[in-house]
Amino acid sequence: MRLGQAVEWMLHTCLNLSWVDEPVSTARLADIYRLPSAYLNKQLQALAREKILVSVPGARGGFRLARDPAEISLLDVVVAVEGKAEAFRCAQILRNGPGGDPDVDYSSYCVVSQSMRRAELAWRRELAGRTIADIAADVVRRNPDAPELVRDALTN
Amino acid sequence: MRLGQAVEWMLHTCLNLSWVDEPVSTARLADIYRLPSAYLNKQLQALAREKILVSVPGARGGFRLARDPAEISLLDVVVAVEGKAEAFRCAQILRNGPGGDPDVDYSSYCVVSQSMRRAELAWRRELAGRTIADIAADVVRRNPDAPELVRDALTN
Repeated sequence: MRLGQAVEWMLHTCLNLSWVDEPVSTARLADIYRLPSAYLNKQLQALAREKILVSVPGARGGFRLARDPAEISLLDVVVAVEGKAEAFRCAQILRNGPGGDPDVDYSSYCVVSQSMRRAELAWRRELAGRTIADIAADVVRRNPDAPELVRDALTN
Repeated sequence: MRLGQAVEWMLHTCLNLSWVDEPVSTARLADIYRLPSAYLNKQLQALAREKILVSVPGARGGFRLARDPAEISLLDVVVAVEGKAEAFRCAQILRNGPGGDPDVDYSSYCVVSQSMRRAELAWRRELAGRTIADIAADVVRRNPDAPELVRDALTN
C-alpha cells in the first residue's frame, strides 16, 4: 500500500497557505521545496476541484485556501490527491467459490471484506479528525518563527 | 492508496487452509475461486517466506498454514503481500524549505509526517488485532457449512 509523494507536498502546501493572505503562484509554491512545478500544478488543480484551494487568475493570481484551515481535514487533502476509492477493493471472489451465490453482495457480506474495511475506517477516522489548523498550531508551538519564514519565502 | 488484489486472495486462502489438515496444491487453491495460478503461486511463496505458510514438496505436497490461525493476524498477511514499507513515505521536503536543517530527521520531527503516521498506525493496529481464527469464527457463526464446503472443494 502506498500513498503518492504528492500527499506530502499538498499537506505542506495547505499548511503554508494557511499563513499567507494573498494567492501564491505555482512557481513559488514549487520553489519553496524545489518541487517539480508542472506536476505540482496538477495537484493544485486537483485540490481546487475539491474546493480545498481556489485558483485566482491574473498577474497577481495563484492559489489560496478555499476555506478556513480548521475546515480542511487531512482526509480532505489525501482524498483530493489519491481519489475516493478504498484501498481494499473486494472483487467478490467468494462468488466463484463453493456455495457462492451470484445474488449476494459479498463486498458487504464477506467477513474478510468487512474486516479490511474496518481497518480502513480507522485510518480515515484518524485523518478526518485532524485539520490543517491543528497541524499549524503544533508547528507554531514547536517553531514560533515558522509562519513568518514561510510568508517571507512565498510572498517577498 | 491501493492494496493489491492479492491481499483478498491470500486472506481467503489462509482462511480456507485453516479448515484443511493436509497441504493443498497451488492448482487447487487457484481453482476454488478461478484465480490465475502462476500469480497466485508467487503470493503463496511470499507468504511462505514470511512463515505464514509452509510449502510441502512432493506429489501430495502443496501449502498449509505454518502456525495456528489464532497466531496469524490480518496485518501479517497484508505485510507479506504488500511489503513492510509505510504507505506515507516522508521525503523530508522541509529540508529544502525556509529554515530547513539538513541535520534534522524530518520523518520523525515533522508534524505532517507524524500525523500521517498516527493514522497509519490506527490502520495497522486494527489489522494486527484481528486474526484468521477470528474471521473463521465469524464465518462459521454465519454459515456453519463453510468449513466442510471448503474442505470438499480443496481435498476431494
